[in-house]
Amino acid sequence: MSFAAATTVTRVDSSTWQGEVMPHWDIVGNANGGYLLAIAARAAVLASERPDPVTVTGHFLAPASPGPVTVHTEVLKSGRRFATVRAEVRTAEGKPLVASLGSYGELGPVDAVERVDAVPPELPPIDQCVKVEATDSFPPPFMDNVELYLHPEDVPFGSAGSPGKPRVRGWFRWPDGEALDTLGLIVASDAFPPTIFNANLPVAWTPTIELTTHVRERPVGEWLRCSFNTRFITGGFLEEDGELWDENDRLIAQSRQLALLPRG
Amino acid sequence: MSFAAATTVTRVDSSTWQGEVMPHWDIVGNANGGYLLAIAARAAVLASERPDPVTVTGHFLAPASPGPVTVHTEVLKSGRRFATVRAEVRTAEGKPLVASLGSYGELGPVDAVERVDAVPPELPPIDQCVKVEATDSFPPPFMDNVELYLHPEDVPFGSAGSPGKPRVRGWFRWPDGEALDTLGLIVASDAFPPTIFNANLPVAWTPTIELTTHVRERPVGEWLRCSFNTRFITGGFLEEDGELWDENDRLIAQSRQLALLPRG
Repeated sequence: MSFAAATTVTRVDSSTWQGEVMPHWDIVGNANGGYLLAIAARAAVLASERPDPVTVTGHFLAPASPGPVTVHTEVLKSGRRFATVRAEVRTAEGKPLVASLGSYGELGPVDAVERVDAVPPELPPIDQCVKVEATDSFPPPFMDNVELYLHPEDVPFGSAGSPGKPRVRGWFRWPDGEALDTLGLIVASDAFPPTIFNANLPVAWTPTIELTTHVRERPVGEWLRCSFNTRFITGGFLEEDGELWDENDRLIAQSRQLALLPRG
Repeated sequence: MSFAAATTVTRVDSSTWQGEVMPHWDIVGNANGGYLLAIAARAAVLASERPDPVTVTGHFLAPASPGPVTVHTEVLKSGRRFATVRAEVRTAEGKPLVASLGSYGELGPVDAVERVDAVPPELPPIDQCVKVEATDSFPPPFMDNVELYLHPEDVPFGSAGSPGKPRVRGWFRWPDGEALDTLGLIVASDAFPPTIFNANLPVAWTPTIELTTHVRERPVGEWLRCSFNTRFITGGFLEEDGELWDENDRLIAQSRQLALLPRG
């Protein structure tokens, strides 16, 4: 199912939207966090009549299973450049799944100074990367709905052994030629295997507490080159810093999430 | 006036708090963003009965002048480890100033694996750094309420000329020996001069759209060593990534803000 279809919401009233968490967007039974947050952002885009997320933060409150959801939106400010919107996704029974706060606007070419102190992640060509494919066991069904090709050095639990560096780099696109828009970047920023899988640590999973994605501009092309890095595993937490680059070698989005480390 | 006094809020009802934006916490007439966000977080801490912000995001909606404000809180989830709270600061007339969403909890020593791929910023001793002092003109009155000592290489518009690198490093503490708590880290993450001041670009100011601060643990000691870096000035935006380290050489907090570049 396309991303656009899987995140469709329909208006119930001025602040309530009906949507559905679709099957096969889950990791081991729980819907992917970026996907849930994109449902919230889709409603916020419609509520604010602004096409693009500029900076969106989601806090993940409960695991989500497939089924109908409602999104509650409130436009806190509608300014000239940006509208600030909160949007919460709840189950049909009212249980909160994700709470979001974001600023939305219209992204496009701007006449402003530029300076970049970074380069896109160095990735082998796609056919030399390792496709993450859904199987009956692992990886999860979510991988049917995204196309991920990992840098061979960063394949988690790979046959060559984990590289010991909490880093994941790879290619991302939607399957079936679906165009990538700025809402899709929210999913891309949470679609890759956790960096911790490559850290040679006895950690099997790191639930996301919060994810923030900054979108700089609309992506050109279908492929993104992405990198996710963790520098601080401390205090029972870790961050994952993401960079998403498009086919024009432009930084399209940055993301950071705070994840929880299981207690030892 | 101490930070604790300047961010005091008193309960009006279960979801409303009364506070005041104090004089001398402003930059050229507008209250510092981190200070405003700390008022919101103070109310969220009280509403959730959790002592520490863990990850707090603020979106800045309007410039704030000194005067009474109300904070509206809603505890969206109160879980075992964290409570997720939204808190909005509005003027007495109801105009929204900052909207926040955060997860709060109790930070303390944890038994979990650690790995750090970074070191604290290299700073000369405090007496060899450059104190940012409030004067009648610039820097702003806010500097009466924080103690900032900048790395001599990073003094904005310094006599030696701007270094051309959008980076600011320095020491931070509260004046008059006030103890630094985790709410204060929100101010510290927004207290330094903008990195853009050191970029040799014709940009005089970069308003913050959104600030997110992750707090890893409670700081030990009175001094923080902080660094703020910008790698991407693109699309009309820039990020500022902050690291705050305590006297035990521990990373206490990370921050990232998205700021707006004036159009050329």
